[in-house]
Amino acid sequence: MEKRDLLYEGKAKRMFRTNDESVLWVEYLDQVTALNGGMKDQMQGKAELNNQITSAIFEYLATQGIKNHFIEKLSKTEQLIKKRSIIPLEVVVRNISAGSFSKRLGVEEGQVLPTPIVEFYYKKDELNDPFINDAHVTFLELATPVEIAELKKQALQINEHLSELFKKIDLQLVDFKVEFGRTASGEIELADEISPDTCRLWDLVTHEHMDKDVYRRKIGDIIPVYQEVLNRLNQLSIENKGE
Amino acid sequence: MEKRDLLYEGKAKRMFRTNDESVLWVEYLDQVTALNGGMKDQMQGKAELNNQITSAIFEYLATQGIKNHFIEKLSKTEQLIKKRSIIPLEVVVRNISAGSFSKRLGVEEGQVLPTPIVEFYYKKDELNDPFINDAHVTFLELATPVEIAELKKQALQINEHLSELFKKIDLQLVDFKVEFGRTASGEIELADEISPDTCRLWDLVTHEHMDKDVYRRKIGDIIPVYQEVLNRLNQLSIENKGE
Repeated sequence: MEKRDLLYEGKAKRMFRTNDESVLWVEYLDQVTALNGGMKDQMQGKAELNNQITSAIFEYLATQGIKNHFIEKLSKTEQLIKKRSIIPLEVVVRNISAGSFSKRLGVEEGQVLPTPIVEFYYKKDELNDPFINDAHVTFLELATPVEIAELKKQALQINEHLSELFKKIDLQLVDFKVEFGRTASGEIELADEISPDTCRLWDLVTHEHMDKDVYRRKIGDIIPVYQEVLNRLNQLSIENKGE
Repeated sequence: MEKRDLLYEGKAKRMFRTNDESVLWVEYLDQVTALNGGMKDQMQGKAELNNQITSAIFEYLATQGIKNHFIEKLSKTEQLIKKRSIIPLEVVVRNISAGSFSKRLGVEEGQVLPTPIVEFYYKKDELNDPFINDAHVTFLELATPVEIAELKKQALQINEHLSELFKKIDLQLVDFKVEFGRTASGEIELADEISPDTCRLWDLVTHEHMDKDVYRRKIGDIIPVYQEVLNRLNQLSIENKGE
């Protein structure tokens, strides 16, 4: 596979074309941002950690029957993915109240929700990624009502697999954000990344934040935290291979 | 009917108990507020106008088969209503983009929506009446999924009848907010008020604002504007009686 010209540069990764037009080359960046770019810092080692964590998770999800865009990890900071037409929606699943959910509804952080809740945010920097409802999704022609049902169904399935995976490594999956794309034939498939940048993870024993809230809330350094998440995932993988 | 003690004082009306515990006595106030109380003014004549407008509209809706809490107008500023257990949701229906919808989605004001859009806002002053989705409504135990479907259905039916009514008096119903209550047997029924305080109305010919935006956006004096809406409703009523 040959790396070609830059297609897109985001907040935490660059995407390049390849000699295969259905395949993209992703390079993770040593950059962390929050509050829609209101906070932004260089962070050595973050690219490696996120690329390795998201690769491990997408591989795991594929083994659980969750089709996704991931092809293979190329290096510590690079991976290959299938090119998808990305739906500009952040699909959020919540298991425990936290963050904007707590603020919006006036619910203290840490309340276990009786059933997981799905939310849609319209990916649009200039509007600050607003929270929207199903009727808005249809109006904006981001997805049809049938596709909205599919997005929710897949998001909740992913939530079950991720919750189980993280529980095995003593992490509670509080909430997470995923993005979906359409395949050439129009099927909806998981895309983007899943990492401590996109998940709220609380240590099951100490209840410490093991995610980007460490940066967002200025609790400390994220590198050792993300490293710990990767170590636990790697340990689990070794144990599973030994079985 | 005997007026008894004050039950509740809101931004634009007072509710009193009566000698019949299933009936409330409503007194409209000469007060106008906007931006969740951020703007507030006394406005002589507003009570009379809103009480007369909302009475005429609730009576009209009843003739169209839309059950509601209205019993009768007692005086220029007072009316009797059936006591309902109010669901703390603002149910908004939009036909044309305007206000917070335009801001949230980055859509210019005045775009006709291909299909009316329903939105829910959680009535909670201390949270600034946040916009929420169906899953939040269920989580907050404001309504069950079956009731949510019923709220949307009734809101859209009300929209059809109101749009038709306003069209007859050369007003375009841009959007409106309604509230619902539960009857003693648990049925969902239209409550609260419908007036230029709760509807966006644009003159069909001049496209002028004929609603609270005149106050909210500091365009001018609302009293002559609300008076014009009432005059047109009264004129229509006289014409219909003459038929």
